[in-house]
Amino acid sequence: MSWGLEHLPYGVFSRNEGETPRVGVRYGDHVLDLAGALHDEVFATGSLNAFLSRGPAAWRDTRAVIQNKLGTDRTAVEAHLIPLDQVTLHLPIEVADYVDFYCSLEHASNLGRMFRPDEEPLKPNWRHLPVGYHGRAGTVVVSGTPVVRPSGQRGAAVFGPSARLDIEAELGFVVGAPTALGDRAGRFEDHVFGVTLVNDWSARDIQAWEYVPLGPFLGKSFATSISPWITPLAALSQARVEGRRQEPEPLGYLRRQEPWGLDLRLEVAVNGEVVSRPPYRDMYWTPDQMLAHMTVNGASLRTGDLYASGTVSGAEPDERGSLIELTWNGTEPLKLPDGSSRTFLEDGDTVTITATAPGPGGTVITLGEVSGTVEPAR
Amino acid sequence: MSWGLEHLPYGVFSRNEGETPRVGVRYGDHVLDLAGALHDEVFATGSLNAFLSRGPAAWRDTRAVIQNKLGTDRTAVEAHLIPLDQVTLHLPIEVADYVDFYCSLEHASNLGRMFRPDEEPLKPNWRHLPVGYHGRAGTVVVSGTPVVRPSGQRGAAVFGPSARLDIEAELGFVVGAPTALGDRAGRFEDHVFGVTLVNDWSARDIQAWEYVPLGPFLGKSFATSISPWITPLAALSQARVEGRRQEPEPLGYLRRQEPWGLDLRLEVAVNGEVVSRPPYRDMYWTPDQMLAHMTVNGASLRTGDLYASGTVSGAEPDERGSLIELTWNGTEPLKLPDGSSRTFLEDGDTVTITATAPGPGGTVITLGEVSGTVEPAR
Repeated sequence: MSWGLEHLPYGVFSRNEGETPRVGVRYGDHVLDLAGALHDEVFATGSLNAFLSRGPAAWRDTRAVIQNKLGTDRTAVEAHLIPLDQVTLHLPIEVADYVDFYCSLEHASNLGRMFRPDEEPLKPNWRHLPVGYHGRAGTVVVSGTPVVRPSGQRGAAVFGPSARLDIEAELGFVVGAPTALGDRAGRFEDHVFGVTLVNDWSARDIQAWEYVPLGPFLGKSFATSISPWITPLAALSQARVEGRRQEPEPLGYLRRQEPWGLDLRLEVAVNGEVVSRPPYRDMYWTPDQMLAHMTVNGASLRTGDLYASGTVSGAEPDERGSLIELTWNGTEPLKLPDGSSRTFLEDGDTVTITATAPGPGGTVITLGEVSGTVEPAR
Repeated sequence: MSWGLEHLPYGVFSRNEGETPRVGVRYGDHVLDLAGALHDEVFATGSLNAFLSRGPAAWRDTRAVIQNKLGTDRTAVEAHLIPLDQVTLHLPIEVADYVDFYCSLEHASNLGRMFRPDEEPLKPNWRHLPVGYHGRAGTVVVSGTPVVRPSGQRGAAVFGPSARLDIEAELGFVVGAPTALGDRAGRFEDHVFGVTLVNDWSARDIQAWEYVPLGPFLGKSFATSISPWITPLAALSQARVEGRRQEPEPLGYLRRQEPWGLDLRLEVAVNGEVVSRPPYRDMYWTPDQMLAHMTVNGASLRTGDLYASGTVSGAEPDERGSLIELTWNGTEPLKLPDGSSRTFLEDGDTVTITATAPGPGGTVITLGEVSGTVEPAR
């Protein structure tokens, strides 16, 4: 069975309008209502945050209890298994801070070539630290939320709807256990609860005009979509791989202690047609390094912090995780099977990002998809 | 009396350890406990957010009721006036998203000259839009919180405590009334509740190495201090002035409808000695323009969003709001009256930012100060 005991991702659902959403895990085509099944009100609070704040020992124990109940004590929880088609899925976490990194060597190089054709594609700092910046936490939305085409300045005295609306296929990491101000984070798995797919929608014309010298702002802040399902790190044990070799060797605080590269294969589909298959395992900076970097200055973590990898792009042309790379800045339109072509997104287009990873015993972990449809500018 | 009926800023206080903090307004040397005085539990929730979410009509009504009670019905509220020296002040808002702008022509020009000496100081976009970026909401702290000197990368393979720790004197704006995703904000005063002083602590060496191409990150994210007191816009009616003349004329969505320039005079003191007097009225972009820009792409506002002006620097050398400008990148040390000199901050230094504004009938509004002391790196 897909979505079996080896996976059990967490989400937030409701059955009826007006009901306070509750935490559940996905099991096959059902959601297990955890507040009911485990008699614990921490799961009746509308988001995963209260549960996440209990920390890694509680995460492990809860997973073991759920696996045991579903695997050997099924009748006891039968009443709390709700068919997926009877629920509405919500944003699974209250996002505290949102940080977006830039960890693909190929993506950073491609963007550098396009945005700054007269310079070296990579800035001098890129191989020394995982470059990142803060995004807008308040516009992180759950998969399925329509994305209104943003308007803005696209150049000096040029205003209107973005004509270069793009996507970025990314992997996001959800922080469960916080740190105090002034401290650094400890081990990755003691702070990070799990992963989710992210679409960092990007208006390239707005971004190109605004981003110097303080970075992207309105070109990104209109919407960032995430999957309704958070896959716990515990489900990805078979997907862990050594990270990509780094040259020069990073400074001590960035040195990898354990393998936290992840063998995830992403797929990006436009209107149902796969246009790219980005390989996460080829990312230059691994998520443990991102966490160490983000907190090396003493910045505190909060439960619900979300940080994302940046666009996942591989070395091959059909492994690029954004349209600006896939169409090389719009100069090489993508042909879709329906006969149309795309440089950037048109109104009505639906973009869906999926991913799989090796699970235990030859199983396959299928991450919850993230999908969104473009609505016309208002 | 200072801090009289014309001001009445809002804060959050507690009297005893472990007590849930409550909302109060400052009146002279007292705090009026609003939950008690107004019999309204919205003020017993630990932050201003629940009250702010009620919107501008409620803000006006509440201010009128408080002014009336304190002015004409004093005996009825006497029991709820608590001496300031008996309370602890807390972070007044739960910060949702934090955005920092870059609205001083002089500051942006000065920084451009220092960070990019071979280029035009202002980027081509600067006179067309208020440049801004997202900061870390989770490390916004209340005045008085110690600031641990951050460590980080200060260049290729160079790691250690920041040797160029700086401040930025700014004015912050607190959003009360939210917008829906996809919408734009309406009138400034229908969304923004009030203002607070901000110290955007900055590690210049970390910032200079990391900030290309995605903007400042760890050079800023270790701490941003705000005053414990939020001054409502209603208290600043006498401080409103036309904004500075803009050339070229901004696009329609950025055109000023009403005067929201503010005649605030800031003072920056290091260890009690005033080193700068930045004039807020000379800022190029006004806060109504920042709000319009931040939401023109449909990004939603949440109650508790905080956005800041960027460093307030005037045209004169002693009107600059950061040490990097006051010492011209460390080349012209400041002499302090105790005989010492400063380029950047030393451990143990205390920085305090204050401000005054004209109030009604010749009174003076004194904003709540923001102060912080540097602790050694850990």
